[in-house]
Amino acid sequence: MTSVRRTLPLLLGLSFAALAADPLPSWHEGPSKQHIMEFVQAVTTEGSTDYVKPAERIAVFDNDGTLWTEQPAYFQVLFAFDEIKRLAPQHPQWKTTQPFQAVLENDHQALAQSGMDGLLKIIGATHTGISTETFIANAKAWLTQARHPKTGKPYTEMIYQPMLEMLDYLRSQQFKTYIVSGGDTAFMRAFAEVVYGVPPEQVIGSTFVTRFQISDGTPQILRTAKLAHNDDGPGKPESIDAVIGRRPILAFGNSDGDLQMLQWTAAGAGKRFMGLVHHTDATREWAYDRHSQVGRLDKALDEARTKGWNVVDMAADWRRIYPFEPVVQKQVQ
Amino acid sequence: MTSVRRTLPLLLGLSFAALAADPLPSWHEGPSKQHIMEFVQAVTTEGSTDYVKPAERIAVFDNDGTLWTEQPAYFQVLFAFDEIKRLAPQHPQWKTTQPFQAVLENDHQALAQSGMDGLLKIIGATHTGISTETFIANAKAWLTQARHPKTGKPYTEMIYQPMLEMLDYLRSQQFKTYIVSGGDTAFMRAFAEVVYGVPPEQVIGSTFVTRFQISDGTPQILRTAKLAHNDDGPGKPESIDAVIGRRPILAFGNSDGDLQMLQWTAAGAGKRFMGLVHHTDATREWAYDRHSQVGRLDKALDEARTKGWNVVDMAADWRRIYPFEPVVQKQVQ
Repeated sequence: MTSVRRTLPLLLGLSFAALAADPLPSWHEGPSKQHIMEFVQAVTTEGSTDYVKPAERIAVFDNDGTLWTEQPAYFQVLFAFDEIKRLAPQHPQWKTTQPFQAVLENDHQALAQSGMDGLLKIIGATHTGISTETFIANAKAWLTQARHPKTGKPYTEMIYQPMLEMLDYLRSQQFKTYIVSGGDTAFMRAFAEVVYGVPPEQVIGSTFVTRFQISDGTPQILRTAKLAHNDDGPGKPESIDAVIGRRPILAFGNSDGDLQMLQWTAAGAGKRFMGLVHHTDATREWAYDRHSQVGRLDKALDEARTKGWNVVDMAADWRRIYPFEPVVQKQVQ
Repeated sequence: MTSVRRTLPLLLGLSFAALAADPLPSWHEGPSKQHIMEFVQAVTTEGSTDYVKPAERIAVFDNDGTLWTEQPAYFQVLFAFDEIKRLAPQHPQWKTTQPFQAVLENDHQALAQSGMDGLLKIIGATHTGISTETFIANAKAWLTQARHPKTGKPYTEMIYQPMLEMLDYLRSQQFKTYIVSGGDTAFMRAFAEVVYGVPPEQVIGSTFVTRFQISDGTPQILRTAKLAHNDDGPGKPESIDAVIGRRPILAFGNSDGDLQMLQWTAAGAGKRFMGLVHHTDATREWAYDRHSQVGRLDKALDEARTKGWNVVDMAADWRRIYPFEPVVQKQVQ
């Protein structure tokens, strides 16, 4: 804490009392919290053999299932379904065309039958053929009025309080926090700055090919239906290399889609932190791993255990899941 | 200057005397310098109708011909030629295969005949099939020992002192400075941080498709021969939208390849700054515009004049071109 105590209060006008406060109050005392704090202390202490310059303190976080809930389905998919309903009056043929008909009739069986092809049609119809600005405005409008089917809360409140604290803590220690997610980059930019404190330029995700065009004298960026980058699995270290150009020293995920990002982070020189959120709390959130359709955690769990990565046990490690919940006082055994 | 005087010295420990110093000493007094300073003052003065929050102070700069020289050819192309010579012993067939033979024999005519296809083969052979780390190490090694054919200086000294001052000035006013260039992103990252003070994550350029792979237990990012993004013309606002996700309030270029980036910047709400470096100095640098093979400035020059963008007259506006030159005292008329 030496360097923090000496320099940060001067720079930021903070009191020593504020710094002495627990930066991770929603984490139970235990190995997960301890490992996070030891790692941060090691890489930020000047003179330490593990010291990392502020510019190189890159931390990357998956989004779905790592920073917010991904059940009963990815929120972006629920957004797409709602957009189909909103846009249906302009597309009367959808009433009798799959997979749109299935969405309009809440026909889960027909929707499941339409498979990945059907989902891509739904994503295409709601995510492309419009400008980035229009798409983000649509996403913001939805996030304002839509409610989660289980909790009745806005989706932007279905975020993990312990991870919010970790993001804040890292930033207070001059880390640059990035989101690296399979979700659509522009969709995440619609809320990441307000909800997570992560600015647009630190949001990396899947992207469509765009086209700059001038219509009626106004330049716009049109989102075409062609996928430019699928930011999942190996796509994550690839986009980290392309967009950030530095190897992270800390990476956090929750599923097999994060494995390569963790491997890439782990393979760098010096001290690193690799973390997985393990969904173990069927009461307060959801419990799933190896056999889940959403956020499957199987190979990455094995590799984490083999290599001693940090597996967060949601039920045992987190005093609180969501910001709107009361704090649970139970201590980890 | 009110907000600057009040807050920056406190935050950064600067003296008022340092702030009072001219931030652009290599610019002659004249409209170009005046417009830059007026713009910065307007958008950074709290309470001004033109005020822009620090997080939104995004400034984008082309590289070739805007931050460093692009004559007699793009430096990245000269790097590729030198790499062909360095790698030739491992490729004996190059001695008798075009376009490689032309490079090895300095046969400008045969090289010209090989055209764009030939150039792409040369780029492919030197820029791809290796990891990002290896490629950047190669670029760094070249930049250390290669010398510019006209001045005999390292390429990293063929940079424009007035633009370096502008980058520093903008950053001192809490702008985030980006490079947005047709050049290869990784090539620019080999020097941008040390030379321009622009960190890797603020370098945007052309990219190849990469592939994450683990060989002998070590993860690496392999650069494949397939172009992922051509960051020229419309590709510039497209990459700005994809990577930054905010519209710049200041953009600087020097050629028609920057036109769409300037149009995109100009079309935003509020006060904006659009600048072009016009190469008018055949004595100290080069003079070229509408008919140049490299860095052609034609349509963008017309649009700049029609719309009142800032066209920097290198001969008249800059007291000094390169950091290694003495300051010229001549004043602009």
